[in-house]
Amino acid sequence: MTFADEIRYTSATDPWKLSQFGFDAARQGSLESLFALSNGHIGLRGTLDEGEPRHLPGSYLNGLYEERVLPHAEAGYGFPESGQTVVNVADGKLIRLLVGDSPLDLTYGEVLDHHRTLDLRSGILHRHTNWRSPNGRSVRVRSQRLVSLTRRSIAAICYEVEPIDDEGDLYVAIQSDLLANEEAGGAPSTDPRSAARVAPLIGELSGAKEARAVLGHITQSSRLRMAVGMDHELEVPDRSTTAIDVNSDVARFTVSARLPAGSKLRLVKYLAYGWSSRRSAHALRDQVEGALATSKLSGWDVLVTEQRKFLDDHWAAADVEVEGDDEMQQAVRVAMFHVLQAAVRAERRAIPAKGLTGPGYDGHTFWDTETYVLPVLTYTAPESARDALIWRHSTLDRARARAAELGQKGAAFPWRTINGAECSGYWPAGTAAFHINADIADAVARYYGATGDLNFDRDYGAEILVETARLWMSLGHFASDDGFRIDGVTGPDEYSAITDNNTFTNLMAQKNLREAANAVGRQVEVADRLEVDEAEAASWNRAAEAMVIPYDERLQVHQQSEAFTEHDEWDFADTPAEHYPLLLHAPYFEIYRKQVIKQADLVMAMFLRGDAFTAEQKARNFAYYEARTVRDSSLSAAQQAVLAAEVGHLDLAYDYWAETVFTDLYNLHGNSVQGLHLAALAGAWTVAVCGFGGMRDHNGWVTFAPRLPPKLTCLAFRILVEGRAITVKVGRNSATYHLVNGKAFTSSHHGKEFTIAVDAPVTLPIPAAPEVAPVQQPMGRKPIHRD
Amino acid sequence: MTFADEIRYTSATDPWKLSQFGFDAARQGSLESLFALSNGHIGLRGTLDEGEPRHLPGSYLNGLYEERVLPHAEAGYGFPESGQTVVNVADGKLIRLLVGDSPLDLTYGEVLDHHRTLDLRSGILHRHTNWRSPNGRSVRVRSQRLVSLTRRSIAAICYEVEPIDDEGDLYVAIQSDLLANEEAGGAPSTDPRSAARVAPLIGELSGAKEARAVLGHITQSSRLRMAVGMDHELEVPDRSTTAIDVNSDVARFTVSARLPAGSKLRLVKYLAYGWSSRRSAHALRDQVEGALATSKLSGWDVLVTEQRKFLDDHWAAADVEVEGDDEMQQAVRVAMFHVLQAAVRAERRAIPAKGLTGPGYDGHTFWDTETYVLPVLTYTAPESARDALIWRHSTLDRARARAAELGQKGAAFPWRTINGAECSGYWPAGTAAFHINADIADAVARYYGATGDLNFDRDYGAEILVETARLWMSLGHFASDDGFRIDGVTGPDEYSAITDNNTFTNLMAQKNLREAANAVGRQVEVADRLEVDEAEAASWNRAAEAMVIPYDERLQVHQQSEAFTEHDEWDFADTPAEHYPLLLHAPYFEIYRKQVIKQADLVMAMFLRGDAFTAEQKARNFAYYEARTVRDSSLSAAQQAVLAAEVGHLDLAYDYWAETVFTDLYNLHGNSVQGLHLAALAGAWTVAVCGFGGMRDHNGWVTFAPRLPPKLTCLAFRILVEGRAITVKVGRNSATYHLVNGKAFTSSHHGKEFTIAVDAPVTLPIPAAPEVAPVQQPMGRKPIHRD
Repeated sequence: MTFADEIRYTSATDPWKLSQFGFDAARQGSLESLFALSNGHIGLRGTLDEGEPRHLPGSYLNGLYEERVLPHAEAGYGFPESGQTVVNVADGKLIRLLVGDSPLDLTYGEVLDHHRTLDLRSGILHRHTNWRSPNGRSVRVRSQRLVSLTRRSIAAICYEVEPIDDEGDLYVAIQSDLLANEEAGGAPSTDPRSAARVAPLIGELSGAKEARAVLGHITQSSRLRMAVGMDHELEVPDRSTTAIDVNSDVARFTVSARLPAGSKLRLVKYLAYGWSSRRSAHALRDQVEGALATSKLSGWDVLVTEQRKFLDDHWAAADVEVEGDDEMQQAVRVAMFHVLQAAVRAERRAIPAKGLTGPGYDGHTFWDTETYVLPVLTYTAPESARDALIWRHSTLDRARARAAELGQKGAAFPWRTINGAECSGYWPAGTAAFHINADIADAVARYYGATGDLNFDRDYGAEILVETARLWMSLGHFASDDGFRIDGVTGPDEYSAITDNNTFTNLMAQKNLREAANAVGRQVEVADRLEVDEAEAASWNRAAEAMVIPYDERLQVHQQSEAFTEHDEWDFADTPAEHYPLLLHAPYFEIYRKQVIKQADLVMAMFLRGDAFTAEQKARNFAYYEARTVRDSSLSAAQQAVLAAEVGHLDLAYDYWAETVFTDLYNLHGNSVQGLHLAALAGAWTVAVCGFGGMRDHNGWVTFAPRLPPKLTCLAFRILVEGRAITVKVGRNSATYHLVNGKAFTSSHHGKEFTIAVDAPVTLPIPAAPEVAPVQQPMGRKPIHRD
Repeated sequence: MTFADEIRYTSATDPWKLSQFGFDAARQGSLESLFALSNGHIGLRGTLDEGEPRHLPGSYLNGLYEERVLPHAEAGYGFPESGQTVVNVADGKLIRLLVGDSPLDLTYGEVLDHHRTLDLRSGILHRHTNWRSPNGRSVRVRSQRLVSLTRRSIAAICYEVEPIDDEGDLYVAIQSDLLANEEAGGAPSTDPRSAARVAPLIGELSGAKEARAVLGHITQSSRLRMAVGMDHELEVPDRSTTAIDVNSDVARFTVSARLPAGSKLRLVKYLAYGWSSRRSAHALRDQVEGALATSKLSGWDVLVTEQRKFLDDHWAAADVEVEGDDEMQQAVRVAMFHVLQAAVRAERRAIPAKGLTGPGYDGHTFWDTETYVLPVLTYTAPESARDALIWRHSTLDRARARAAELGQKGAAFPWRTINGAECSGYWPAGTAAFHINADIADAVARYYGATGDLNFDRDYGAEILVETARLWMSLGHFASDDGFRIDGVTGPDEYSAITDNNTFTNLMAQKNLREAANAVGRQVEVADRLEVDEAEAASWNRAAEAMVIPYDERLQVHQQSEAFTEHDEWDFADTPAEHYPLLLHAPYFEIYRKQVIKQADLVMAMFLRGDAFTAEQKARNFAYYEARTVRDSSLSAAQQAVLAAEVGHLDLAYDYWAETVFTDLYNLHGNSVQGLHLAALAGAWTVAVCGFGGMRDHNGWVTFAPRLPPKLTCLAFRILVEGRAITVKVGRNSATYHLVNGKAFTSSHHGKEFTIAVDAPVTLPIPAAPEVAPVQQPMGRKPIHRD
């Protein structure tokens, strides 16, 4: 497959708009994910206004989950007994239309024109449909949908209908619904990675008056309450009637109208959502009714203006400009838009692996958030990174309890969760993947380093660093040769498990231990409160110093984990293309004991802990692991891209960049219907900034080593460092560093220190890329070449 | 705890009888297992005739299982989707008694005298109860129960009632039942190792006439058919009436009788069981009715005589005599009796880990059978060993399919199963424990070596050896240093998993490969049929030669698996006694990554592959692993005993012998209610013969190195080698070898070759035991010392 084999998303590639023309039932599921709107609190999948046809309806509230039993064929100590599944809450985006007596349905009648556009600067999803009903009447339906990036509980839809034939008055009915416990739709998946779907809402209250209605529900097992309300503004050109009905699962505002030729009906629907684990149904009702009242008072135009203003500010601080590949430019912005959407109003909730775009992975958050998503936010929207880390901090007590349950000290954060409790049903690739704790610590240290936010450090960050350092001290031990070993854990590569001294884990733990020692040095009262004495902090530094990093002297490469390079090779020549992802076609034991790698692990260590490797080691290691990495995880390509760029494979880096950027636009993993691959999309930024921009942030010093891929003529990006906005513009032969505001900034460019001040940009030449021998991927696993 | 803290089972320790006096509700569950009767086809737990009170009723037919779904919190490729559970079939041992209108129940009225005796020479369970009913009448009830060791489908009960007061005529009613789908009783266990219990029998036919009744059932999911029939002979002293009733789940023969003082009622109940996966309900009914007719024709006395004759012959060939510890003598025979019972008429069915004594482990068979039980049978009842191996052979197609499913060549036998399909729900301690294949191959080679049974070799054995050798060739690989590595597997010690180069596995695989090469050399037509060419056989020898055996040069000990001795130590000092077994109190990952050993693994390798270690290595390894082995498995003590005896710790060996012999008599693991620990009981023989007798059988040569433990004055045992009966009598200073029949036998005694012929015994001096430094167990895990 090449990218060109796939349908283009845009007829003309607009750098700020993602458009889709025509109705395509086969791609509807992934389009629902790509056109999903969210603010990190509310998520609405991009289903059509009329609700059907659709693959998955999908309305989500961040943190609202249902509990379910996790069954085990053979139980074991510490196996989680219950899991959490994101709930498809009451659907407020439904606006059904009857044209005469025909329901608008793109699979019936005749679609004269249909396109949808997600505008990345306005934050609005536009829909335009000209349709001829089976009984011969033609209408134009236009809608604009937004989930407010400034008002956490608000979404709104502006819906317009006009007759476009000359057959006289058109009678239409519009039914604007709130619908709870709707059928999920779609065939149940047999992929173990897809979500269990439940419909667990129990009605607690409902009420309606004039154009306004509210439903209140509670989840059956988890006992979480939610309320949703809608209100409407209606502009009708001629005669109309309205009605409002409500029962426990449905509220419906009905408009019946006569539309003379050339006239237009306009309905603005305001939606407000709220949920709580503590507050009463009445309090929640009042909350959504209050939010509805203010947003209706503001009106649609104000919501639109606020949305645009918010995004203008964001893009000014965060935009990545790509010259030389228009489709890539557009796709990078789509990716960044979704990363922002997933996080911006999440406040103190998790950012799930799929954001709020679908039910994949049960709506859980994993290490992806800290390791892939938060770096983007740290340098482009640091408040959102902070909020996500404060959410992690809010789960510390659960993590401490989990560590104790596991016989460990400190805190053990869950591999997958919504509320902070471990939900992993398969411990070798769950509980054993302790690196998530170092990944969280890394995100804490990065955020602190990039912002200097001492309040965060004092109130949240230092405590996370301390408790994760304590975990490492109990997970590891000093062996006979005085090396500090961490045995029996699973690294990022889930095609190996329960290994000794996973290099990624050990290097990240090393950093974790050192950062914790630093933190207690600067946060004395935190150290006191947590009873960290000097001996304990010293032991962290000692363990970090003695950390075992396995290396194969014969092959002159680092080992992903001890003995890794002694393991058998995978028979790639005999593995047909349809056997990927391997985990669905081969048993774990077979995958684990061979040198086959699902996703960057040692390669990722060379990015996040690039300070622990020489340039020569990086090149040799990259070549070795590249030949054994199958990229069965969407987390892999971005990491490989960054390292490929660093060691000099710029073309290959570009191909991997495309793979991560287009993960969902081209549905490369075939499961985008379940939601977007947020970490892969975050890679759009990471590859631009850390790959081609060569940005690194080791020990709090942000440095650059930019190098343009052959395909591009220019690449520009913006980052925030300690409150300063910095712009980097990378050309073919030189890079220019601008400081937009704040005090002078000192960095390095390809190893040479430089300083910029406001109005004093610096332009520096880019050295030629190192000469490198070509590398090989496993047979059949070469990335698609973007020519 | 010491053994003396426990209640003695016998008032006078009879060397051939296990008796229990008085009714003890607390120990009833384990007594039901200890008094279970079986012939390997039928198993009847030792419940009271009247059925209640009881812990688990338990009637089993070997191989009759129900299917159930195996749920997985997160599914994975190759995870078994359905499991098998042994079925509690229709209970034919029920004979209820009404004394006047009071049901005989030992928890009511007054127990004047109650004892039960399992007679190891007659194979009969005797019961004697004098009971005063709540309404004041006293009766004596005596019963004898047998499951025929000569007639596969037959069991019988002789039941007698007599009034023992002088209150005149006593009216009694006797209800003799067949009862299907009875409640299992007992609280559901939360121990993951206990069985799922189901009651899945669907009635297909039932019929009754005179004193005879038959029930036919089919299992709900697995669709296996069974039939059970009963017939009766009644002797009454006075007036009586009888009736027979039947419905789909109950058949009842009722006797009402008037018993004058001094008179006695005698009822003989004949039972016949049959099951089939293929035959019709009518065919099964006819089969059990036919068996009933012949056994009734023979009559009770003939059944008793046959049973005695069978056992006399068996003990003559197999008995172990212990002088100096009467309780041990008795217990060794109890253990051997149960091993025999589990196997003798199993014919071509599996021998489950619990025999047919309880529902533990779902009635599955594991490697225990080949590695613990079959050696006993190979040298004492070789036809039963042969039958069990022919059963394995009958599952070869399933094992080949499983290997293919797992991406391997050859055959991969299931970790746990009833019908040959993998039922393990936790792959790191199931599928990954590939050593079971070498264990089966070892049992095949041992049986062939000890019998010279070329027909078996040609028809069954060689094929198993070839297909398991092929498995090892695909599981292992030649690494860079030319060593043949077997990575990512689990050895016998389930407190480590998914390790590289487990020494036990590698040594057993080495033997497997060599035995396969030998087999194709002598069975040319088998080699042809299986398309084994010379190159393939040569590759087996090459892999065997190059097998990696990990050794720690610094500590001068073998490693249980690669890197094992680098792992952290378990904190035994901080592990309270109630935290054993550890698997119920600590997560797998924590257990796996530390040097804590559930059960003999490297130590076991030194027994089964003792030819691969020097005496010095054995002593050093034993001391090292002894200090880290917690014996959370009942499989451990016997292996430790054998090696302790070999390296010179004879007292310790004795204590471990007691631990294995008394596993169920003292309910040492607290779960004997679920059935007997057959492998541990097999250890009674193994420690006597291979521990204190020092018998080894490497490469087909049976040798001895006897040494008496201080506690004993003499130990004698009998074994069969290539049809010859050999008796070994071990005294304090010398051992005497007798050949009872057959051609001259050459062996070695403590390394010195000797030959015996019929009537030409040889007596040889026993060298002093080597001086050894004391060894230590983990804190709190020293075995109970038998003083």
